[in-house]
Amino acid sequence: MKRFYLFLLLLTSGYLLPPASAQSVRWHEIHPGIWKGTVGKPDAYDLLKAADTEPSSTLKKLKKADFPLNNEDISVEVKNGKTYLRFPLERNEQLYGFGLNFQTIHQRGRIMQLHADHYGKSDNGRTHAPVPFYVSSLGYGVFVNSAKYIDVYAGSSVRKDSRNAPEVQDRNTDKNWQAHPYSDAVEMLVPAEGIELYVFAGPKPVNAIERFNLLSGGGCLPPRWGLGFTQRVNRLYNEEQVKAEAKAFSDKGYPLDFIGLEPGWQSKSYPCTFEWDQIRFPNPEKFVKEMDAVGVKINLWTNPYVSPDASIYSKIKPYTASNTVWNGIVPDLSMPEARKILFGQFEKEHVKIGVSGYKIDEVDGFDTYLWPDVATFPSGHTAEQLRQTYGLLVQKYSYDMFRKNNSRTYGLVRGSNAGGSSFPYVIYNDNYSHEDFITALINSGYSGVLWTPEVRASKTSEEWLRRFQTVCFSPMAMINAWASSTQPWTFPDVAEQVKDMAQLRMRMMPYWYSTFAKYHYEGTPPFRGMNLEEGFGMEINKEKTPTNLEENPYEEATAKEVKNQYMAGEYLLVAPLFTGQTSRKVILPKGKWYDFYTGKFAGEGEVITVTPGLSKIPVFVKDGGIIPMMPALLHAPKANEKVDLEIRYYGKKQAAVSSLYDDDGETFAYENNRYTWRELKVESRNGVLRGTISAPEKDKPNTIGRVTWHFMTN
Amino acid sequence: MKRFYLFLLLLTSGYLLPPASAQSVRWHEIHPGIWKGTVGKPDAYDLLKAADTEPSSTLKKLKKADFPLNNEDISVEVKNGKTYLRFPLERNEQLYGFGLNFQTIHQRGRIMQLHADHYGKSDNGRTHAPVPFYVSSLGYGVFVNSAKYIDVYAGSSVRKDSRNAPEVQDRNTDKNWQAHPYSDAVEMLVPAEGIELYVFAGPKPVNAIERFNLLSGGGCLPPRWGLGFTQRVNRLYNEEQVKAEAKAFSDKGYPLDFIGLEPGWQSKSYPCTFEWDQIRFPNPEKFVKEMDAVGVKINLWTNPYVSPDASIYSKIKPYTASNTVWNGIVPDLSMPEARKILFGQFEKEHVKIGVSGYKIDEVDGFDTYLWPDVATFPSGHTAEQLRQTYGLLVQKYSYDMFRKNNSRTYGLVRGSNAGGSSFPYVIYNDNYSHEDFITALINSGYSGVLWTPEVRASKTSEEWLRRFQTVCFSPMAMINAWASSTQPWTFPDVAEQVKDMAQLRMRMMPYWYSTFAKYHYEGTPPFRGMNLEEGFGMEINKEKTPTNLEENPYEEATAKEVKNQYMAGEYLLVAPLFTGQTSRKVILPKGKWYDFYTGKFAGEGEVITVTPGLSKIPVFVKDGGIIPMMPALLHAPKANEKVDLEIRYYGKKQAAVSSLYDDDGETFAYENNRYTWRELKVESRNGVLRGTISAPEKDKPNTIGRVTWHFMTN
Repeated sequence: MKRFYLFLLLLTSGYLLPPASAQSVRWHEIHPGIWKGTVGKPDAYDLLKAADTEPSSTLKKLKKADFPLNNEDISVEVKNGKTYLRFPLERNEQLYGFGLNFQTIHQRGRIMQLHADHYGKSDNGRTHAPVPFYVSSLGYGVFVNSAKYIDVYAGSSVRKDSRNAPEVQDRNTDKNWQAHPYSDAVEMLVPAEGIELYVFAGPKPVNAIERFNLLSGGGCLPPRWGLGFTQRVNRLYNEEQVKAEAKAFSDKGYPLDFIGLEPGWQSKSYPCTFEWDQIRFPNPEKFVKEMDAVGVKINLWTNPYVSPDASIYSKIKPYTASNTVWNGIVPDLSMPEARKILFGQFEKEHVKIGVSGYKIDEVDGFDTYLWPDVATFPSGHTAEQLRQTYGLLVQKYSYDMFRKNNSRTYGLVRGSNAGGSSFPYVIYNDNYSHEDFITALINSGYSGVLWTPEVRASKTSEEWLRRFQTVCFSPMAMINAWASSTQPWTFPDVAEQVKDMAQLRMRMMPYWYSTFAKYHYEGTPPFRGMNLEEGFGMEINKEKTPTNLEENPYEEATAKEVKNQYMAGEYLLVAPLFTGQTSRKVILPKGKWYDFYTGKFAGEGEVITVTPGLSKIPVFVKDGGIIPMMPALLHAPKANEKVDLEIRYYGKKQAAVSSLYDDDGETFAYENNRYTWRELKVESRNGVLRGTISAPEKDKPNTIGRVTWHFMTN
Repeated sequence: MKRFYLFLLLLTSGYLLPPASAQSVRWHEIHPGIWKGTVGKPDAYDLLKAADTEPSSTLKKLKKADFPLNNEDISVEVKNGKTYLRFPLERNEQLYGFGLNFQTIHQRGRIMQLHADHYGKSDNGRTHAPVPFYVSSLGYGVFVNSAKYIDVYAGSSVRKDSRNAPEVQDRNTDKNWQAHPYSDAVEMLVPAEGIELYVFAGPKPVNAIERFNLLSGGGCLPPRWGLGFTQRVNRLYNEEQVKAEAKAFSDKGYPLDFIGLEPGWQSKSYPCTFEWDQIRFPNPEKFVKEMDAVGVKINLWTNPYVSPDASIYSKIKPYTASNTVWNGIVPDLSMPEARKILFGQFEKEHVKIGVSGYKIDEVDGFDTYLWPDVATFPSGHTAEQLRQTYGLLVQKYSYDMFRKNNSRTYGLVRGSNAGGSSFPYVIYNDNYSHEDFITALINSGYSGVLWTPEVRASKTSEEWLRRFQTVCFSPMAMINAWASSTQPWTFPDVAEQVKDMAQLRMRMMPYWYSTFAKYHYEGTPPFRGMNLEEGFGMEINKEKTPTNLEENPYEEATAKEVKNQYMAGEYLLVAPLFTGQTSRKVILPKGKWYDFYTGKFAGEGEVITVTPGLSKIPVFVKDGGIIPMMPALLHAPKANEKVDLEIRYYGKKQAAVSSLYDDDGETFAYENNRYTWRELKVESRNGVLRGTISAPEKDKPNTIGRVTWHFMTN
């Protein structure tokens, strides 16, 4: 009898109770191969609401698919005011994504808290784009639509009730004892009383990413000029200095499409006025027009923190946070009032006089200067929610301003998140590690964002050229000389090689533009990791370093990741060299690969070693690759300007087909169907390869002049 | 009219509403100079509840004081399920504490999330003892009694409504632009719907710390043997090897009070059985007794993660977490059932046969192996709460076991928190940076915990000796040879100097024991930073490094902190040298200071440079310092064993008084008043200094034999 009462007591006090049984998620296929599930009471404000984009119309054309996971293996539980998530993992499954990581690609086994922040030299979830999306090597994706800091255990912890529990080992005697036993689940903790989840079908991993990107409108489509070259000048240059800079590019024959002005264009910065400095830029409208006349657009640096000296200060103050940033007030951009005031000012002062875009700085975070998590915002959204979405908000509402003016933009932003794929902004940061920058470029493709490995300064001409080579094979070819005042020809001994690279960038514009069109219409990341490439081994080689209990008592096997080569567009494999390297290994996936410069056969499904010399970045073309190129213009073609094409074909395949995107290149007319895909076709007739381009469509833009075919492989 | 409706809409939708007005806290003086304030609905489980200790009876004797802050400047707000805290800061105020930091002492301006964890090479709040307590240079302390991860902004953010707002600067033109403007508040975010707060009066900063320590029972009082020397042997040693080790110490004349056995004493480890290995230790009871007979006690390593092969496994399983650690199940030690099973096993298998204490490992965290925050516990407490308190729980309930057996213990633990001051455990870790270890020793004094700069291995005999010197001036003089198998004489060329240091440690036992008694009865940290010393300048010199926008765009002035000297007990200033140093600067606070070894005048209120040679660690004695010492025994005196005293006096003060603590040294009899303070008095008679000790109290312990006085300064 006593025992019974004890039992009752324990029961009522919460002891002995089994954990509240997890809810099974009810999934709805909202688009073909995209399922949405809602559990509990999700926060009213989330990433997709902040981004506020329409799903791409392409989704309608996709095929329905089977739900790619066993729903019984997914567990979602709401308790203690938080949502506990569990997704299954197969033994040999690999995971990619979880935001813009800088040092790791394979995410299985990792622990992170997804948190908008400046990258702080370790992949712990704090990054410029802490996208809560992951893609599996088994060909599906998962997205957690929350604007909170999400704790992620990506196959790192073993549950007591695991169906595939790892073997128990004795560390005293078992030399193979592992600090991290095998885990069969991705677990996540969301500090909210419910959650909205999305699952994406493949069948291939890249298809899951495409679906994720299409859900928020597909990738962005930059104007053609956005894919040219851009120079960001010294922060205190005045208009004469900027004009001189543009003239120097032109005189020396370096391409240049837009110049970025750094803080000094504003009358005050950190905090900002958003107003032109009357001494350095006495007549902004005239200045912007003059620059435009010589083919160079103007991009403006800013951050969103409002100076007491800004004319909008008093008006926007009621819609700002409790805490300041560098003594500037922080607009609550989740409120229409704040947006209207801030971007109203932008539109009037900048966009209306022809400014082409922005570099929006310091919206990623960095605890030491940002508003703290104890800050409050007048919308009632928490500091955490604003931090996770601020990058989305500045992109969304600045982009809307350009759309309203029917002029495409392409700029830079230092923070983004899920839902932002369709915003024409490229992420950058101050880390400046060439190796990390390439890893970030790879990871951008897993997270629906763009990243530029920008060039700033360099210690040697070798470093300068090596960095320049990679930035020309990235979403934005840029020198950022805000502090260094460098120019492409800063190192005279490599100035010609730099010019060659910049010209190559321009010549490849048709390829890049079509690549971005595929990002926009199909969701395919323009720059992406080798693991998304068919025929590239997915296995990871783990290497256990010799045990040293003294220095590393929890030593674990480290995965050897391929972080130094990537895919650019449909056909190109880029394998950069870093300072100090004269040769490197390149892993060629299955199938034949050809040297981009010579067309010669390079290898197939093997590891080759290349010694390209300083002036070349190794690039390989997939068998049957069709690469449309144009002359090395100094500026991108203007709207509807016709350019001749040189189309290269690589390999000996007797038939191949590709497509070339075309539109006016500058306006939003493409959203009203004013675009075309031209078929590029290679066939063999009587043993001789021939290339053709389909005829232009009636009433559609046509910027294609004379077409020449080059069969690169003999 | 329309405007009015818009206003209503905005109002009801949360826009335009002023932030919910902060509540003013109602403070109650619960002990003299200690105020408690409760706001909202604090969590039912908190740090003090986990530690579950009684406040020290000393508190009754303290004087009442005025509330040390302006209550109007304190703001506490509960919203969005969280508690928002704000405490004021004066312009020149400095802050210390916020847990066991390893690289910083001055905490003003810092941002951290207090989070139980292994120290990860940066002071971001993740540490072995993330104590939510800070002390101000103005002489007050603040404690936030929450077992959650607390976000701390220790004077780092500026509020829009700041009364002392910093000057707005323009980064374009102002060379003194600061990345971190001055802030006048400590802000904290506690993820709970209310909070219990404590404020401690001074008048001096050290008094606020004393009050904080006394609130949870005062500091711990180790047994005398705990302050001797301890050796932790190789993890796989068997009983014969352990006996041989003890014999070698004795044969060579090195003191030794207890030996620590590492994982191999258990039949299996990682996860653990808590049972003796029958091959390495076939007869544990006999072994422990034999060791005790030669004056050496046994301490056992363990972690709390239960192996499926442990005899308690099935019994404890219902009271364990959802997730495992190294495949071991995790007892929910907030449940009496779990504690009873685990410590019942410990008591039966270890304590009852004479084991003297434990080293409780891996209770601090380290995400890569610990239970994740998505784990659930049968008590219903969250993984976060268990993580913040697990170190407290293992200390509390293992200590209770020894108390029940009326035998004091002194051991090691890798995690602790606020409330744990009275538990006789010293914190350690794997970081093994000599410099960081000294910084941690200093910070332990601000956080109510103890820390040992343990010696493991060394690359050179110089490093070995330098490390050994500091560990002998710390709470636990220890070599941890678990992986290295080192011994004090491992480096033959410094073996004699090491022996001298170990003997000095033993000779100083009366001083150390009284120092700990003051920790216990008065709350005074035995080892502490110079900033708590009167006459030591509190000002911080900030040094702005030359601006390099390229490499560090948010460069800030860095504070020059004094991290390489500290106070040990009432009188001693310790200034260790690190590898590579032959001389160093020492800052002597105001007042005269004397060389510990020679008694010679060293300086007063000045910076001196010392070149002590390899065999000495510079130690200075405050003017009028009375240092009781004893012969260099190989083992601490047994309970009630009498030892002769040599009492040293430093300086030329004509009168001084100190007190010497005495009790049996081994049992809990002191809790029943079985202790005594003997007065040590120096007076001048006819110009000649004379020392006296007060007579023993009737019916009180008396372990003092013959007393000799040495007047060190001529």
